[in-house]
Amino acid sequence: MPPIVVDVKKRQADAEINCSECKGPVYSLGLNTYQVPMALHELNRARLVQSMLEKLDSSSSSSSSSSRGVILLEGGKQTTRYDTDHEPVFRQESFFHWTFGVPEADVYGTISLPSGESTLFVPIYGLDYEIFCGSSPSLDNIRSKYGVDNVLPIDQLDDYIASQLDGSVDGINEDDDNGNVNDAQLHLLSGLNTDSGNYCMAAHYDGIEKYSKRRNTDTLFPTIVEARVFKTKPEIELMRYTNWVSSMAHVEVMKCCQVKMMEYQLESLFQHYTYTHGGCRHQSYTCVCACGPSPSILHYGHAGRPNDRQLLDGDIALLDMGAEYHCYASDITCSFPVNGKFSDDQLLIYNAVLSAQIAVITTLKPGISYLDMHRLAERAILKSLKNGGLLLGEVDDMIDADLGAIFMPHGLGHLIGLDAHDVGGYTETITRPRSERPGLKKLRTARTLEAGMVLTIEPGCYFIDVLLDLALANPKQSKHLCVERVNEFRGSGGVRLEDDVVITDDGCENLTVCPRASSEVLDVMNGKPWPPEKDVLPELRRNWVNNDNGKMVRYDL
Amino acid sequence: MPPIVVDVKKRQADAEINCSECKGPVYSLGLNTYQVPMALHELNRARLVQSMLEKLDSSSSSSSSSSRGVILLEGGKQTTRYDTDHEPVFRQESFFHWTFGVPEADVYGTISLPSGESTLFVPIYGLDYEIFCGSSPSLDNIRSKYGVDNVLPIDQLDDYIASQLDGSVDGINEDDDNGNVNDAQLHLLSGLNTDSGNYCMAAHYDGIEKYSKRRNTDTLFPTIVEARVFKTKPEIELMRYTNWVSSMAHVEVMKCCQVKMMEYQLESLFQHYTYTHGGCRHQSYTCVCACGPSPSILHYGHAGRPNDRQLLDGDIALLDMGAEYHCYASDITCSFPVNGKFSDDQLLIYNAVLSAQIAVITTLKPGISYLDMHRLAERAILKSLKNGGLLLGEVDDMIDADLGAIFMPHGLGHLIGLDAHDVGGYTETITRPRSERPGLKKLRTARTLEAGMVLTIEPGCYFIDVLLDLALANPKQSKHLCVERVNEFRGSGGVRLEDDVVITDDGCENLTVCPRASSEVLDVMNGKPWPPEKDVLPELRRNWVNNDNGKMVRYDL
Repeated sequence: MPPIVVDVKKRQADAEINCSECKGPVYSLGLNTYQVPMALHELNRARLVQSMLEKLDSSSSSSSSSSRGVILLEGGKQTTRYDTDHEPVFRQESFFHWTFGVPEADVYGTISLPSGESTLFVPIYGLDYEIFCGSSPSLDNIRSKYGVDNVLPIDQLDDYIASQLDGSVDGINEDDDNGNVNDAQLHLLSGLNTDSGNYCMAAHYDGIEKYSKRRNTDTLFPTIVEARVFKTKPEIELMRYTNWVSSMAHVEVMKCCQVKMMEYQLESLFQHYTYTHGGCRHQSYTCVCACGPSPSILHYGHAGRPNDRQLLDGDIALLDMGAEYHCYASDITCSFPVNGKFSDDQLLIYNAVLSAQIAVITTLKPGISYLDMHRLAERAILKSLKNGGLLLGEVDDMIDADLGAIFMPHGLGHLIGLDAHDVGGYTETITRPRSERPGLKKLRTARTLEAGMVLTIEPGCYFIDVLLDLALANPKQSKHLCVERVNEFRGSGGVRLEDDVVITDDGCENLTVCPRASSEVLDVMNGKPWPPEKDVLPELRRNWVNNDNGKMVRYDL
Repeated sequence: MPPIVVDVKKRQADAEINCSECKGPVYSLGLNTYQVPMALHELNRARLVQSMLEKLDSSSSSSSSSSRGVILLEGGKQTTRYDTDHEPVFRQESFFHWTFGVPEADVYGTISLPSGESTLFVPIYGLDYEIFCGSSPSLDNIRSKYGVDNVLPIDQLDDYIASQLDGSVDGINEDDDNGNVNDAQLHLLSGLNTDSGNYCMAAHYDGIEKYSKRRNTDTLFPTIVEARVFKTKPEIELMRYTNWVSSMAHVEVMKCCQVKMMEYQLESLFQHYTYTHGGCRHQSYTCVCACGPSPSILHYGHAGRPNDRQLLDGDIALLDMGAEYHCYASDITCSFPVNGKFSDDQLLIYNAVLSAQIAVITTLKPGISYLDMHRLAERAILKSLKNGGLLLGEVDDMIDADLGAIFMPHGLGHLIGLDAHDVGGYTETITRPRSERPGLKKLRTARTLEAGMVLTIEPGCYFIDVLLDLALANPKQSKHLCVERVNEFRGSGGVRLEDDVVITDDGCENLTVCPRASSEVLDVMNGKPWPPEKDVLPELRRNWVNNDNGKMVRYDL
């Protein structure tokens, strides 16, 4: 199979046209669920190839030859639970999905360099598989479905890799008789995920060891991570959809929420709404449905705290829930009083957090440091708490004393994309190292913002006994606390508000469409339709500019 | 800590009383969700200890000493998805759950022999965990919650194991100066799961290697597997609850099902119903929502076939869905026409399958071979197909020609408990080896039935092109086929009906409470209440005898 020679820039331009005109195959779960152009992944591959070639060219003395080679990615495997044959619903590995958009398990994919030719290697199943799991589609059907250049059976993978490295199954041809250097490389994905501390492991199959001299694990990982940080237009469109679905599901939950319900019933309703109306089979993360004191446990909802509290009159509900579609995430938090009425103290905390969110969202633009945004949010919250009589003294002094992290011990937010906590928050070359200071050390990125980044803005204010006790024991912090007033809030949980925004050339655009002003929240709980036809709160809404006409995009779910 | 000396039989009797009187701690998700007595697991441990001691005594010459030792089980670990920090909702490993009923991750548990003393070893988390995931409860609270004898921090596990083996951290004391043999054993769980072909791996922690001479991996696995095969009264009560929840959810789906809906919307509704009304956060397995031709793919619904077909007028829906509660499974299949009307041909197939299910359920009792039940179901289906004009000749000849497996290529059912496909289907000593014949080779158990076993009875009849083509090419099979008539059914998918039954002393009891007669199905789709107050079809209903008064237990969801 001779490699197809393609102009890299033309490939990228073609993919952009295919995306904008929705040419070629699409992914959709049917009905009104979003039609994702598979050209989204064609564009990702084209961008990856261009970045790889730039990087390889710049790092090489003998420029042309070093850029020859092949990228190999291994898709996720279908797993079974412990020793049983229980198969959890498969969810594709995110790097593989970004590159190929294939939802099935046990697939490999390659991209040739410099041509950019893409090939999928798929398992070929037998009669038993056909009876139990369905017949394997033809290779040509798979090619059409995913818009790749080639599809081959997985047993041809090793031959193909050999051919791309100018070799054969019998071995790799090294430099030829005419003195031409053969330095084609096998690029594998290997590196550290800075959110989890887990390593991304290089693709493997039996026999790959023989290419050890050609193996390059330095270039692909930082290149693809950096490409994932910047979302393309079709990726943003898709995330707008997941945000719409999850926003409308949050609204549904607000409308249905009643005193005496259980937290898990809110989780169940959210999941049902996003799946049945939006085609979202997976959630981006475990639903946090924290009511009453529960919000003071930031990742409430896990198996040890399974959203099993009953909603009581007077509780604030903090619901952090987001669905994914075609593996692209949303991540949204709403907070509201379950009985439909804010107490004065609840409103104080709610507006403290809202003012922080507004301050950040109206400041975001390229060139701004996300770390500064964390500080901006802290400052707004501390100022509100001071005005509410909980704190004393100068806000600057409070910041110096790390008091912000007592009330908001998590970071302002994170990059979001295929993973809720998306890759690229910290890198060796681009970002400063992670801060060691309270609050900032939890910030999942300290990058300077650039157009195309999608991030969550999720300020929060919580009353966490163990942290309040630490603050009281620390003279630098305790001098700012009005102890009696603060103690009135103990056990009241907390408030978080979380939107997903994309950085634009001159500001940002809010992908999340949830009621945010306290009056909006109560109106929605009382049955008022949402979203409003007209923007009622310009300060909040100026970022809902979702298409070229400056209008909000509405999906018919 | 001196071991508590306990009379093994008294321990079991106490646990039985605690279960029946619901004494001691319970697990419940709140509201009307089922209250599981934690004594269920106390009883499981007592049964396990008794079986272990019997086995160890019988296999040992120096009877008393060999029964000394400790059982060590390792609970499931919280995992992350690929390299990310995405944490799927944790689901406990089934052997561990059977023994201790602990839903949290990263726990170890021990049972001392012969005393039966139970100890949990739990992780102790720091400040960061407390803020993000909640504070660790006190050891005493954990002990009360799970009804075990002791709870210790995980860093004391190795000391504890050493003490149970008459040693210390410095080493194991071997035989003492008085000639007393020290042969206390460390019992670890290790063996083959016959459904998956996967191995259950022995508990491990850093440092366990030093006990290699005391390690016994032969006894525990077959003993606990055999104990799991026989469900206790509280386990059956719990499975009655999961069956009730899932049955009512199936009824809800039948009522809401409409032409033009999507298959995945039925999945979403089922999941929502079982979670919000029944507290079932997990499904026992991926929902199979197969409409039109889809039922001919037996495990439809996986990521490659994600329930994404639209329901058309004239389709049969085959819905195989079951929720779990406290890790105990249900597994139920209903089949019905999405437009609320059976065609004559659809009714033919439906009644063929129903007659097979009735034939089996009315025959089940201790002493019956499950393999014979598979044959009985095949026979009933083939007979109906012959009466319907699809087949010619003698049913006995068809059985000899393996024609049953053309229309029902799967087994009649399987053991069910903590896993939908529960352990113990085949064992080295008790069961005959798995048959090699078509159909039978897919049967997940060939055991002779005994009281306390819970199994699914799930006959089906499908029109699978590849199998029909194989039959046509096989003279022994093709001579029985009325080709034109059979071809009329191609593309029509198929029908499966699946109930969960428990074998009783003199028959069986049906835990599943779904409409089964075609008239019942249509009535429910037309809004008639379910279940009926009186048994209207004695032939079907004689197995709905769910309490001591012979009445069906109804749960208020």
